[in-house]
Amino acid sequence: MKISILGAGAMGMLFGAYLSRRNQVWLVDVDEGRVNRIRSDGVSVREKDGSEEHFFPQAVTDTAALGEMDLVIVFVKSMYTLSALESNRRLLGKDTYLMTLQNGAGHEEKLLRFTDPDHVVIGTTQHNASVLGDGYTFHGGSGHTSIGSSGSGGQDLREIAEEFTRCGIECSVCDDVKKQIWMKLFTNASASALTAVLQVPLGYIYDDPDARAAMHALCREAVEVANAEGGARFDVPEAIESVENVCKGSGGGYTSIYADIKNGRRTEVDSISGAVVDTAKRLGVSAPCHEMIVRLIHAMERRP
Amino acid sequence: MKISILGAGAMGMLFGAYLSRRNQVWLVDVDEGRVNRIRSDGVSVREKDGSEEHFFPQAVTDTAALGEMDLVIVFVKSMYTLSALESNRRLLGKDTYLMTLQNGAGHEEKLLRFTDPDHVVIGTTQHNASVLGDGYTFHGGSGHTSIGSSGSGGQDLREIAEEFTRCGIECSVCDDVKKQIWMKLFTNASASALTAVLQVPLGYIYDDPDARAAMHALCREAVEVANAEGGARFDVPEAIESVENVCKGSGGGYTSIYADIKNGRRTEVDSISGAVVDTAKRLGVSAPCHEMIVRLIHAMERRP
Repeated sequence: MKISILGAGAMGMLFGAYLSRRNQVWLVDVDEGRVNRIRSDGVSVREKDGSEEHFFPQAVTDTAALGEMDLVIVFVKSMYTLSALESNRRLLGKDTYLMTLQNGAGHEEKLLRFTDPDHVVIGTTQHNASVLGDGYTFHGGSGHTSIGSSGSGGQDLREIAEEFTRCGIECSVCDDVKKQIWMKLFTNASASALTAVLQVPLGYIYDDPDARAAMHALCREAVEVANAEGGARFDVPEAIESVENVCKGSGGGYTSIYADIKNGRRTEVDSISGAVVDTAKRLGVSAPCHEMIVRLIHAMERRP
Repeated sequence: MKISILGAGAMGMLFGAYLSRRNQVWLVDVDEGRVNRIRSDGVSVREKDGSEEHFFPQAVTDTAALGEMDLVIVFVKSMYTLSALESNRRLLGKDTYLMTLQNGAGHEEKLLRFTDPDHVVIGTTQHNASVLGDGYTFHGGSGHTSIGSSGSGGQDLREIAEEFTRCGIECSVCDDVKKQIWMKLFTNASASALTAVLQVPLGYIYDDPDARAAMHALCREAVEVANAEGGARFDVPEAIESVENVCKGSGGGYTSIYADIKNGRRTEVDSISGAVVDTAKRLGVSAPCHEMIVRLIHAMERRP
């Protein structure tokens, strides 16, 4: 397959590296220094066991000459999704699949501005990674990747999932991928968002009784919004248990939104907690706690 | 008058010093070092213009031998109100007035456990002070002090107010003191609480659009709770304007709850935002934003 990955951050590098085992992969990034570094030295992936593997996907800032892809995966930060797709729309032909595995929600609508529903692929992945340097990513966690179509894209999606699996990214096509996206959003919008506000590791959200109570309130509110949307039906205690398990399992681990606040960077809160708020507004239900969290995090982003 | 002041913190020292101009005043504190320091060197009050005045109220840790007072003023942190009153209940005779000017709400109920409504005096003060050291307080701001009775204490309250005024604490008896306590609570539970969570000066709550929106949401919710309680009727835009004026007027000033979080101390959030939550619960209305703030601040207090 001809695959372009928009955004050579931690996850873009990881997926680009793995998929380059059997496919022609281009990492696309606006950062010229980063692209040049990958061109000359490739991508190094450090695994949790300390081992390292080197990969040589291609890397470009300008995709004008590449022609149409079989698959384009969006891995930029959510606030750059639209501009990244605008700049690289020539990669998209009528047969090109356009995929997002970004955290949060609200990505599907953006992708649908660039192609038809049958070619939009949404999903979640349990892989996580953090940047060690340009062309250097730490593969902090593995797990399953679930994908699904916005329309009725059938056999092709299964082939994409199989190809991912052959490359080391265990993947399957799921009928209830939206449910899985919500489940992941429950964790991000309750536990992860709180790690940013409180500036603590994930484990603290479970360990501290007030942090945990705040997480419960956020999770409950998110489940109510998800249920108001219809489709999948979520159970509050089950959702809370799932979030608690992530917190317990992560212990001293830090989230990317925690790191963004700590380092004075803009966060992805609008597509995490903000996605809950937007969905609530669209459905006419209220989400005061998530609204508060979005405001707190934006106010923290701007602190001198 | 024989006056005991429970708590030789910033405000206790300030009121004790001023009232000792014309009255017999005992500062009561559990901190022996602080009491000894005041005994040997008195209390120094530094005014905003840089001038300093020295006062010599008495200071004790043990009040067993002092006999009954005419007036006992509670200036300990709210979480120590009950234990301070327990330890010093022999100061309270049947004619003793028991006063709180503590920030927040919920103090009146505690005082009523120790004497009858006619002898409980509640109020607010616009004075503020911060500790520069044991026996050394900075008088950061002045203004009016309003007091009122929990019962029907009439003429005696006017005499107390007049005595305060003669000592330099301009004071009057107000029929709507509960309204004034709520108005002050609006500021503390919206703007001040946010300075703790965001770790910013008061001015930032007005200057930053998201901090300001969060403050509006908290203020609106507090007004709805206050109105549900009945009695005084508050207007949301008016309350918001009043809080905004405090933020604008304070600019780079830091709140005590900000400082408590910064220094890893326990805060008074339970009698500020917590008072809104408690009142809401009592009345069966919801206050999700204040609940969230209380939990966030408690979770911050416990961070390693």
